Parts: sequence; structure tokens; C-alpha cells
Amino acid sequence: MAAIFRTFLGDREVRGVLPDDRGLAYGDGLFETMRGHAGRIPWWSAHWDRLARGAERLAIALPARARVEAEVDRLLEGADGVVKLRVGRTGGGRGYAPPAGGEPSWSLSLHAEPEPPRRGLVLRWCATPVSIQPALAGIKHCNRLEQVLARLEWNQPGAAGADADEGLMCATDGAVVGATAANLFVLHGSRWQTPEVDRCGVAGVCRGWLLQHCEVDQARITVEEVERADALVLTNAVRGILPVARLGRRNFVPHPAVAEWQRRLARSHPAFASTPSEMP
Amino acid sequence: MAAIFRTFLGDREVRGVLPDDRGLAYGDGLFETMRGHAGRIPWWSAHWDRLARGAERLAIALPARARVEAEVDRLLEGADGVVKLRVGRTGGGRGYAPPAGGEPSWSLSLHAEPEPPRRGLVLRWCATPVSIQPALAGIKHCNRLEQVLARLEWNQPGAAGADADEGLMCATDGAVVGATAANLFVLHGSRWQTPEVDRCGVAGVCRGWLLQHCEVDQARITVEEVERADALVLTNAVRGILPVARLGRRNFVPHPAVAEWQRRLARSHPAFASTPSEMP
Repeated sequence: MAAIFRTFLGDREVRGVLPDDRGLAYGDGLFETMRGHAGRIPWWSAHWDRLARGAERLAIALPARARVEAEVDRLLEGADGVVKLRVGRTGGGRGYAPPAGGEPSWSLSLHAEPEPPRRGLVLRWCATPVSIQPALAGIKHCNRLEQVLARLEWNQPGAAGADADEGLMCATDGAVVGATAANLFVLHGSRWQTPEVDRCGVAGVCRGWLLQHCEVDQARITVEEVERADALVLTNAVRGILPVARLGRRNFVPHPAVAEWQRRLARSHPAFASTPSEMP
Repeated sequence: MAAIFRTFLGDREVRGVLPDDRGLAYGDGLFETMRGHAGRIPWWSAHWDRLARGAERLAIALPARARVEAEVDRLLEGADGVVKLRVGRTGGGRGYAPPAGGEPSWSLSLHAEPEPPRRGLVLRWCATPVSIQPALAGIKHCNRLEQVLARLEWNQPGAAGADADEGLMCATDGAVVGATAANLFVLHGSRWQTPEVDRCGVAGVCRGWLLQHCEVDQARITVEEVERADALVLTNAVRGILPVARLGRRNFVPHPAVAEWQRRLARSHPAFASTPSEMP
């Protein structure tokens, strides 16, 4: 459980989760998982922008941004940590129709920073497919059973590929989507590509930074293209750029293009200066 | 909000929703919405069976059935009402991987019975598609943003089709799935059909009763087949069999086959004896 967990309704702090929070009943909500560094969230604006896009799509009212910022400051107290923000709504009885004009229910929690991996990541392919749903694509909503099922594939001790750090998922039509909790970037020669997120997948914040600052194309990517890549990296907003050392039986040797991306990100955000190099 | 809302972890009653309930974060859970009549739930075994199928699919531990039954009895106190049961799990930190061997988190709430409609239902088509995901098809899981989005289409005052009682949804490939909170049955001549639930949709409990007791085929059904049907009905476990009076601009006249189904259900379960006839 989080070290600290605080819940709000509109601009009032409330005690615990409200029993009619529609997150519980329908996964009716959005979340952001954010790297906090020295009391600040380096990518705060990008997180808020994605949250706002999701809120517009789901017609969820957002809490006041300044209030959330003040509470995040209070939570981090100048230190490092991972901050999770969830925004949803309450009420509406048993039905799927959300009540009109309700106040946002939101929560903040503070979590320990994960240990940086001491080696490149080991990946596996997941059998659970990602469904194609343009209405929910790109946003970070709380309907995540597909990711839970995928993670369950190698959760059990003794499961094939139980040593994997992450799993790659494909859409129901076979196109590669990304990892359960990270975006995927694929290098062929000098060309970087990342799966489009117009039909499924999440528009990750670190992914957005790379699209803005580096040469990357968004594309439909096949399993075969991933398997014969020159390099693979996973990215997310908490861990930055993570090199991949192995996918199934294929090993990847450290690639200078990955190291160059990592240096660029570290220069841009001191929070990511500790991103592990490709070599232990 | 429900008149009564009680929460449990394993076999202990707990105060309120636990902040690390994975329902809130990921919609990681299952639910059953059940008609209670004179203190009993007529379709209890069918509800429990579907819950058990869902729990197996999601690897969620179930609470002891006898304990849930005792709490449902206590909740209904011999009266009528709608009982909602949710079963999920807690813990696992920020990650999608559920913790192994955790206790089930579950809740029961009691709601007023809805008024029986005084006329046949008015339906509309929803633009929000249902994604195709065999891994989650048939079970009543808590990832319901598609249904929330569909319901939002005619939630606003002044929206087109704002007088609709329910909306029909199609899969992303165009096949008809059902209504947002009910299964659909389509009559052509003397042949009843209902959409299959092997790729998406919910295996409704009233739908299951009809498949067992009446002549119905499961099929892929097109929009055009629905629009030129001789009769349509919606079904769910709370309201039983509901005749459709209008879909978009098409009106449906009361059909003896629908009345026959309603009589049969009423004979089987006194709870549904008050199901409205097709005529006011």
C-alpha cells in the first residue's frame, strides 16, 4: 500500500474512498503515475495535459489544477518519490449513466521510487491481446483488466518466462502495442519507430518527450519487426528510457543510439540522470 | 447512493472501501446485480456460477459462498430489492500484477427496485463501439467505460434520442452486441436469436434462463437484421423480459411471442409476475 493516501471530493479532503465512487464499480476514472524529483514533477504539464484529454473524452470534471499542484507539493515535501493521481466521479446509483454536474473524486498517493534495474530488461510476449477501441485509445483510463491479465501470465512461480521484467502485448489484429506498463521503441538501422496509439495503447509521457525531441516515427509494427530490431527500449514516466537486453530467446547487445537517447534525457531532466546505462 | 453499503475483506466486515482496492485503480473486479424477491434471490445460483466463471478467468479468489448468502439474507430482511455484489482484490502496490494469495475484497449494497416501465421500451443506436476481447467476453467484469461512454451519448438534455430508455451497441466490426445494460433478443418469423457473447458482451442471467427454457439461437446479428425484426426484447436479471416499442424511427407492435415469453417467466419466478405486459 502507498505510504500516504489522500482522497478528495471537489476541493474538500474526505476520509477514505467514497462507497459510490464509480472507479470501483466500472473503472470509471483516469490516472497519472508521475516521477517526483526534489519535490517537483518534471513532466507535470505533460501529465496534466494527458489527464485533461482523458477527462474531456470521458466527460469527467477535473479538480482545480492549482489545488492539485499544492497537494502534490505537500505530498513530496521537497523529496523524491512516485506520485499517483487518480481522478474519477461518484454517484449515479446502479446505472452506467454518470450523474450530470458532479464534483470530481480524486486521490493522491506517494510511493517509493523503484530501484533502477542493474541490467537491460528481459521481455516476453504476452498471449492476452489488447482490444481495439479508438474511443479509449491514448488516454490513461482505469479499465486495465487486459494489462492485469497479461501480467498474470508470468506472475505465478514456475510460469514460462517467469524471469521477465515486462511483457509485450499485441492488439487483437496482431499489431504490436507496447509493454503492459511502458511504451516500446524499435530501432532498425538509424530509424526509430513506436506503435501508434490511435486504436489502443497509452500515449505515454516519456513517449511524448521522445517524439518531441528525437527522430521517431509512429507506425504499425509487427511482431517480426520487433524480433529482428537492432535495439529495443521501453519508456515510461517513472523510469525514463530502459534498454532491452533480451526478448524471448533473442539477445540485444548495447547500442550507441540507446545510450545517446539516455544521455539526452538525463541532460534535459536531472531526475533521469540516474537512468541505468545499458551495461551493469 | 445505496441505502445500505457493506464492505468485507475475506470473512471480516471492514469499514469502508480499502484505499488499495484494485477495483478503484484498474476496474479489477466482478459484479452481479440481482433481483431480490421476498427475501430471496430467485436466480442466485446462476449469478454465483457466472461470478465463479469470472473469478476463474481473472484469478480472483471468491469469498465463501455460504457467508455471502448469509449476508444477502441479512440485507434483504425478507423484503424485495436489488442487491449488488462486487468482488475484487486489494494490494500489489502500483503495478498491474495482483498479489498472490490475497483475500477477496467484496461488497454488498441494497437498492430500490426500479419502477416497471409502463410502455414498451424506446431504443436508440449508440455510436460508441464495443471492443472485441475474447479474454473478457461473457463475464461481468468491472471494466465498463465503453458502456459509460455509450450511456453518455444520450445523457445530456437536448441530445438526439434523449427520450431513449436504452441504447444498442455494436462491436468494432459492426456485429450487434446488445444494449448497454441488457441482452437483446431478435424475432424473425418464429425464430428467436440473440448475439453470441464469445468475443464481447455479457452472458446475462435472464439470457441464460431463456436459452435454457425457450427456443433461441445464438448468432452473429447485423444492424439490418435488428431493424427489420418482427419483435425485439431486452432482458436482464433485475427487470426480466422487456418488450421494445420503438428503435429509432421503427415502431414495433406488440407481438404474441413476447407475451408468451413473459407469461412463461412469470410462471417460473413470481418475482417476474409484475413484468409489464406489452400494452399499458
